Amino acid sequence: MYDLIIIGGGPAAAAGGVYAARKKLNTLVLADQFGGQSVVSQDIQNWIGTRSISGYDLSIALEQHLRAQESVEVKTGERVASVAKHDDKFTVMTERGNQFETKTVLVATGGRRRKLGIPGEKELDGKGVVYCSICDAPLFQGKTVAVVGGGNAGLEAVIDLFPYANKIYLLQRSAALKGDAVTQEQVASNPRVSVLLNAATKEIIGDTVVTGLIYEDTDTKEQHTLQVDGVFVEIGSIPNSELVRTLVSLNPYGEVEVDSRGRTSVSGVWAAGDVTTMPYKQNNIAAGDAIRAVLDIYSYLITPQRS
Amino acid sequence: MYDLIIIGGGPAAAAGGVYAARKKLNTLVLADQFGGQSVVSQDIQNWIGTRSISGYDLSIALEQHLRAQESVEVKTGERVASVAKHDDKFTVMTERGNQFETKTVLVATGGRRRKLGIPGEKELDGKGVVYCSICDAPLFQGKTVAVVGGGNAGLEAVIDLFPYANKIYLLQRSAALKGDAVTQEQVASNPRVSVLLNAATKEIIGDTVVTGLIYEDTDTKEQHTLQVDGVFVEIGSIPNSELVRTLVSLNPYGEVEVDSRGRTSVSGVWAAGDVTTMPYKQNNIAAGDAIRAVLDIYSYLITPQRS
Repeated sequence: MYDLIIIGGGPAAAAGGVYAARKKLNTLVLADQFGGQSVVSQDIQNWIGTRSISGYDLSIALEQHLRAQESVEVKTGERVASVAKHDDKFTVMTERGNQFETKTVLVATGGRRRKLGIPGEKELDGKGVVYCSICDAPLFQGKTVAVVGGGNAGLEAVIDLFPYANKIYLLQRSAALKGDAVTQEQVASNPRVSVLLNAATKEIIGDTVVTGLIYEDTDTKEQHTLQVDGVFVEIGSIPNSELVRTLVSLNPYGEVEVDSRGRTSVSGVWAAGDVTTMPYKQNNIAAGDAIRAVLDIYSYLITPQRS
Repeated sequence: MYDLIIIGGGPAAAAGGVYAARKKLNTLVLADQFGGQSVVSQDIQNWIGTRSISGYDLSIALEQHLRAQESVEVKTGERVASVAKHDDKFTVMTERGNQFETKTVLVATGGRRRKLGIPGEKELDGKGVVYCSICDAPLFQGKTVAVVGGGNAGLEAVIDLFPYANKIYLLQRSAALKGDAVTQEQVASNPRVSVLLNAATKEIIGDTVVTGLIYEDTDTKEQHTLQVDGVFVEIGSIPNSELVRTLVSLNPYGEVEVDSRGRTSVSGVWAAGDVTTMPYKQNNIAAGDAIRAVLDIYSYLITPQRS
C-alpha cells in the first residue's frame, strides 16, 4: 500500500515526486514514458532559470532529479488503464495488467496532440501527415508544406520548417493568428510563408503520400486546393484523462476539474498540469501546481481520523 | 508607459519577466535586490530539474535568464513605496522618488522573516539574535544556541547549526513540530538537540550580547531560563504587501487576495508568489503562478475596448 501514486512522466510528475520524497511519502510514479510533451522541442527557452535547453535534456534532468529521491519508486513502461476507489483506498490498474494500491493519487498525465478528424488524415498519417514538427521537419527539405493551426504550436511548426521547406502555408480557421507576438513576427518576416486566415481544412489528398490539401474559405464558402507534400497538424492538445473519466468530474473538454490546490471531485485524488482545468498549459505551471498538490496530499495524509 | 511593471526580485518576478518577453510586452522589473528569500540557502535540493544548487547560484541563474530577455528592462536598488490607480493606468512610486507609469502591475514582492516582538529581541539584534541560520551559524562554533520555531525554517536552522553548535535547543510554541518528516528525523537523530514543546519564548536576555532566553511552559505557565549564546528566530515570514495595502484586498495575515489566475481585487493588478493567499510558499510554485498571471495579463492587454 503506497501513500501516493503519481501517474505521469512529465514535469508535473517529476516535481510531485521530488516533493513527495521531501515529505518521506511512500510513493510510486507510474509513467508510460518520461519527458512530457515538450520532450520533442529542440530549444526550450522558458524553463525558468535555464536560458536554453532541449526538450530531451530537460526530460533527462527531470528524470534524474526524480530518481535521486530515495523514498520514490519509479516504474516506466506502465500506462495506467484505470483508477478505482474502494472505501478509503484506490486501486491503480495498468494496461500490462499490474495493479497497485494506494491511499492517494496524483493524476499528472498531461495531454496529447489533437487531430483534425477529416478525410485523408488517418489514411496518410506518417505518409506526409505529421504531428511533431521538430521530429519531422527535416523530412521536408525543398518541399511545400501546409501547417494547420495558428496558435503557438502552429507558429512554432512554421519556424521549425524554415531551414527545410521551400514554401509554407499556415492555415488558421479563424480571422486572426493566436500565438505569441514574438513568434507571429518571426513567421511574418519570412517571405516563404503564406498565412491563410478563415481557412477551414476539409480534406488531405494523396494516394500513397500526401499530394494536396483542400480548405474552405469560411467567408465565401469556396473550396481551394493547395498542392503540398506534407501537412503538419498543430491544433492543440487534448487531456489524457481517460483513465479517471468514470472516477472524477471532467469539464466538457475532458479536463479534470480541480480547485486551486489540485483537489478533484473525489477525496483522495488530486490532479496537476495539462490534464486539468487550470488555465495556461506550461511546464513550469505544471511543476508548481503538482508541488502544491503534493503538499496538500501530505497535509491530508497526516491529518488523523480522516475518512 | 509600460505594458507591465513587475515588482519583486525572486523566482516569481524572474519567471513573469521571461514570459512577458515571450509575449513582447514592454516590461519593467523593479527589484530592491535580486534572489528572493532562498538566496541565503546553502543547498536547495528542490528546485525542479536541478538536484542541488545554492540559493546564490539559483538567484544568479534567475537574474541571467531574466536579463537575457530583450524587451524587459530591469532596475535593481528600487524599492517600491506605493502603487496608485488613475483611470486606466497605474503609477508606481519608489522610495528613491522615481515614478513609472504602466497599464498593468504584477506584485511579486514575496515575504520576509517574522519577528517575535518580545523584550530583548530588538536590543540584541545582531548581538546573538539572528534571522539567517545559513549566514550566521558559523559564528556559533562551540556555543549553546536556541532556535525558536518548529516548522521547516526552524528545523533547517537546527541542521545548519549541526557542524558548529555544541548544544541546540529547539523551542516550539505548540505541542508538536510542524516541518517535513525527513527534516524532523534528521533533527531527532542528533543527541546535541533538545526539543522543547509547548514552549513560548518570552524574553531574550543579555547586556551587550545574548546570554539567555526565558520561555513559558504553556501547560504549567511556569517560566524557565535557558543559558544560551545565540537565538535563531525562525517563525516564518510575512508578506511584503505594504506597497499595495490601500490598493487591493488583503487577508488578515496581510496576504494579497488572488484568484487562480493571480487576479487581485483591482482590475489591472495581479499578484503571485509568497505575497499572495495561494497556499504553500515554494520557489517553483511562485514561478508557475507568476507565469500564469503574465499569460492572463497578456490576454487582458490584447483584449480590445477594455476599460
